[in-house]
Amino acid sequence: MNKKILALDFGGTKLAAATLISGQHQWQNTRRQLSGNSPNATTDLEIMRSLIRELLGNEKPLAIGISFGGPVDAKTGIVRLSHHVSGWENVPLREILEAEFNVPVRVDNDANVAALGEYKFGAGQGCESLFYITVSTGVGGGWILNNRLWQGTQGMAGEIGHTVVQPDGPLCLCGKRGCVERLASGPYIAQQVRQSLTEQSQQGEIIRNLVNHQLDNITAQIVSQAANEGDELCQNAIKLAGWAIGVGIGNTANLINPQRFILGGGVTKAGDLFWHQVRQISRQTALPEVDFEIVPAQLGDEAPLWGAVALAETALEN
Amino acid sequence: MNKKILALDFGGTKLAAATLISGQHQWQNTRRQLSGNSPNATTDLEIMRSLIRELLGNEKPLAIGISFGGPVDAKTGIVRLSHHVSGWENVPLREILEAEFNVPVRVDNDANVAALGEYKFGAGQGCESLFYITVSTGVGGGWILNNRLWQGTQGMAGEIGHTVVQPDGPLCLCGKRGCVERLASGPYIAQQVRQSLTEQSQQGEIIRNLVNHQLDNITAQIVSQAANEGDELCQNAIKLAGWAIGVGIGNTANLINPQRFILGGGVTKAGDLFWHQVRQISRQTALPEVDFEIVPAQLGDEAPLWGAVALAETALEN
Repeated sequence: MNKKILALDFGGTKLAAATLISGQHQWQNTRRQLSGNSPNATTDLEIMRSLIRELLGNEKPLAIGISFGGPVDAKTGIVRLSHHVSGWENVPLREILEAEFNVPVRVDNDANVAALGEYKFGAGQGCESLFYITVSTGVGGGWILNNRLWQGTQGMAGEIGHTVVQPDGPLCLCGKRGCVERLASGPYIAQQVRQSLTEQSQQGEIIRNLVNHQLDNITAQIVSQAANEGDELCQNAIKLAGWAIGVGIGNTANLINPQRFILGGGVTKAGDLFWHQVRQISRQTALPEVDFEIVPAQLGDEAPLWGAVALAETALEN
Repeated sequence: MNKKILALDFGGTKLAAATLISGQHQWQNTRRQLSGNSPNATTDLEIMRSLIRELLGNEKPLAIGISFGGPVDAKTGIVRLSHHVSGWENVPLREILEAEFNVPVRVDNDANVAALGEYKFGAGQGCESLFYITVSTGVGGGWILNNRLWQGTQGMAGEIGHTVVQPDGPLCLCGKRGCVERLASGPYIAQQVRQSLTEQSQQGEIIRNLVNHQLDNITAQIVSQAANEGDELCQNAIKLAGWAIGVGIGNTANLINPQRFILGGGVTKAGDLFWHQVRQISRQTALPEVDFEIVPAQLGDEAPLWGAVALAETALEN
């Protein structure tokens, strides 16, 4: 009997597809491709169809799970929009693929699907409740409560990046001051360091040398590197990011009391300075009676694909 | 057939018991009594037993639900402690009453039980997800998610009062700065106004007259009254409280995206100034896509008793 699960990841401008045999914990086959220049929903879908043909030929999967990089109505499987690719407004992605393949299809946004992936196959195995947080270009997350996804009444749960932790802090793109994302996301870490270097011409020798004094080339990754090499200005930037994530986690622990926090995304690779700060500040922010663990994500960029497998499998349970 | 539900409320130093016929929405009978001087767990239990005898005689209820004013392990029904009454450490309240009455008993802490009460009988009817917040001597709350209580992995969920919204704010009893409770609870509102009046001898004429210049007599209720009569210093205190609750609600909406927030407790009776501030700041703090309602609690002091009925009924479903 056919037991093949098809997992799809519409990851902004990166498309990926993979198959595995239901119940197994390794890929049978994977395919990846970039969206290319001026992509839109139609070209994305065409590329994805060709990846699927390479993986499956004419074979039919048992079910399809999809991670989508943007807001989705998980109940209906209708994509609301993509922030990166045009033409995704109100596309009934689930219906389209159910019509093409005549098998159950489930769709959810990437943060929720990644949370499900870590829960089922990664750092969240054995947990009843967890909050998965990605600290990357943005800061977002996904909830598992009572062993299932909690998406919120409109599918908007998990926006820890736009909780306010410093009301008199710097202005975020969302219009508020002192959001977690404004203090901890990769682009904002880089921006903050660039600004400090412009204002304080005597500081940051290490990072200035790392980018040959081309401040525009500064990224959060280079800030981490400079911090690890002893650049004090960069260490302070990493500490501020860790502080913001720490307050966000501590507040969340008090509100929801989940068993575990799982942290993924590029910024979490900043090293001990970041992790120490996150652990210390979150512990200080949570009430003494509120216990929790903070662990690194295990699945990296594959979390959405693994989560898509888990999502497809929920379709088979129903 | 006997369909009588017994609801008990160990509310700090106030004890209450009530009966109703399962399925009905009005009390058959209620009894209330204060714990009295130097109460302890044994005297509290004796008073409660006498209230129950008055209500039931020798009749047996179908099930018993209990709201307890302190941390409880809801799975086992063991009280951890009471902050108001001594001797409650590790008392197996559920087991004691199951042994005495030989019927199913369920126990949970008052914030969770009140949330359940509002969900089943009050301002949360018809909601799938809600957060009940009481703003009173302390600030706490209880969650309904997916039509059931969410207590957290250790039963500690709902502590919105100890989320930090102003990291450089005043010091809270919990050791942190700028907790919601430190800015919005009744006693802290009164303390803040007393301090401002001491520091600013030209201000607060209205409230000074209301307490005949005895600043020790200031309560949050009197602060509200003075604010409503035009006292600017008191208006600012109420606005600060509303701001803290507003940021707390906005952050919570972004994190969990519940359908409705229900606000109860003495401070929420402060009037339009408070409610306007809560609504405006929470709307500004939540992302534009995150919708929610904020409504006043409907059950007042009876929320824990009504919730105890709902809790007892869950015991009958299992």
